[in-house]
Amino acid sequence: MRVGLDIGGTKVDAVAVDDRGRPVERMRVPSGFGPVAVIETAATAVAGISALTGVPVNRFDSVGIGIPGMVNRASGRVDHAVNLGIEHLELGAELIDRLGIDVRIENDVRAAALGASNSLGGHGTMAYLNVGSGMAAAIVMDGRLWTGGTGIASEIGHLPVDPAGVLCGCGQRGCLETVASGFGVARQWHAGDPLPVRSVFDAADAGDPKASRIRAGLAEGIASAVRTLVLTVDADTVVIGGGVSRIGQPLLADIQGVLTRWGREAPFLGRLDLPGRVQLLTEGSPVAAIGAALIER
Amino acid sequence: MRVGLDIGGTKVDAVAVDDRGRPVERMRVPSGFGPVAVIETAATAVAGISALTGVPVNRFDSVGIGIPGMVNRASGRVDHAVNLGIEHLELGAELIDRLGIDVRIENDVRAAALGASNSLGGHGTMAYLNVGSGMAAAIVMDGRLWTGGTGIASEIGHLPVDPAGVLCGCGQRGCLETVASGFGVARQWHAGDPLPVRSVFDAADAGDPKASRIRAGLAEGIASAVRTLVLTVDADTVVIGGGVSRIGQPLLADIQGVLTRWGREAPFLGRLDLPGRVQLLTEGSPVAAIGAALIER
Repeated sequence: MRVGLDIGGTKVDAVAVDDRGRPVERMRVPSGFGPVAVIETAATAVAGISALTGVPVNRFDSVGIGIPGMVNRASGRVDHAVNLGIEHLELGAELIDRLGIDVRIENDVRAAALGASNSLGGHGTMAYLNVGSGMAAAIVMDGRLWTGGTGIASEIGHLPVDPAGVLCGCGQRGCLETVASGFGVARQWHAGDPLPVRSVFDAADAGDPKASRIRAGLAEGIASAVRTLVLTVDADTVVIGGGVSRIGQPLLADIQGVLTRWGREAPFLGRLDLPGRVQLLTEGSPVAAIGAALIER
Repeated sequence: MRVGLDIGGTKVDAVAVDDRGRPVERMRVPSGFGPVAVIETAATAVAGISALTGVPVNRFDSVGIGIPGMVNRASGRVDHAVNLGIEHLELGAELIDRLGIDVRIENDVRAAALGASNSLGGHGTMAYLNVGSGMAAAIVMDGRLWTGGTGIASEIGHLPVDPAGVLCGCGQRGCLETVASGFGVARQWHAGDPLPVRSVFDAADAGDPKASRIRAGLAEGIASAVRTLVLTVDADTVVIGGGVSRIGQPLLADIQGVLTRWGREAPFLGRLDLPGRVQLLTEGSPVAAIGAALIER
């Protein structure tokens, strides 16, 4: 039995999965902040899953962890997980010492991509597009995570698409992320709104022209990312996840509307059926934790 | 022994390769125009390689063919190879009938990508960016061609990067191909110049401001494609081939100059060392024909 943890800024989602990658137990614990607390929380979550399943910790086949930040998969080191108060942490080594079993560490977006692919049956080329505070992507091919030269998660959010766009925090101008992310929406909306994407959708529905513009920009930016993923890696499915995706059907309808319009304007795009390739991550399912459990060495 | 043909608009490049993918014989014949002539030329080229190697045609292990247009790899059918006067042609089936051996058909850019990867040793993730009259790409991972859902060659040239750009023939606005291709350069330069890219480089060297602008746009567009390939698939090498790449070092220096500037503006890009990942396809080597010989079923 394998265990997977999705360590987020506010909570840790933990699952045990069977040999076919299906979750058999699940629990959540609040996230700790800072290196010591993060290790403590992870160990607590594993102990919790052990109690729920009745399997002793040292009898689990492996523990896989998805965590934000830069991850060195080989060493299990995590860098720059700002939301968790981590600058550098040898998370893999610390947990192996503590738990006495195989621990595998992966970037959270890449772990979620693996989980999304598993939930779709794991065939073909799937791109997972995470639209949260930022925008990132990962590609899974026949159930295996794509690993390029550097092992970076795809920084698709930092592809510039408008030379006249705003300056992005990364130093470039007009990056997708400046319009198509939680941060991008918040930047354009009223400062201090705790749920800016939800507010923008509601205000647009009520006829607010500024909100409608921001909402349209979000959909166009996500649609651009979908087009990029199809035209570069011919993804047959693009699954959209992350906090912004929880808007649900209205967001999906906006994105598919843009892709349908582009398909009419450009017949070659129309033939590729971009609207039919897009779907939202199923809500409520612990996809990222399941993906973490499925991480291979 | 395997045979590879690269069927272009003006000539067919033919090679025989040994078990390790090294060319042992090479010849060129002028291309035929229209379905009957294309089949005839291909058969002539195979017969020529047979004569050079002393191996009877029916003793070759396979014949692989790279050809422009839309290719159905499974059936060997070719559609819309406009430069060759082909609307539809069952090239694979016709040649199997005629030669009595295994014939494999692939899109020319994808075949060239396979050849380029082979010439680099076939390790890691390599993107091949073809800048000819248009712009297209193909990705090779540990020596195997990436095949996505639809099996399209990467239409990276039709990624829009400027909402204020010119209308592209595809129906979108500001596509990379409108500035970063032979056709894109010709559109902006004096009509009727038979070698517009060469002329633009020469005129820019002589201080012509219009030529300098076009040349800068070409380098920026190619650099954008390189950035897209690195940020989506983390290509550790991007090999640039196609007619425009024959400008050679001055073009490479321009592209690397843009990437170096971007790396200074955006530190995360700088860390990815984009200039170090770019190289030009080695000139004079029959890379596309060798790649065609290496096509797998």
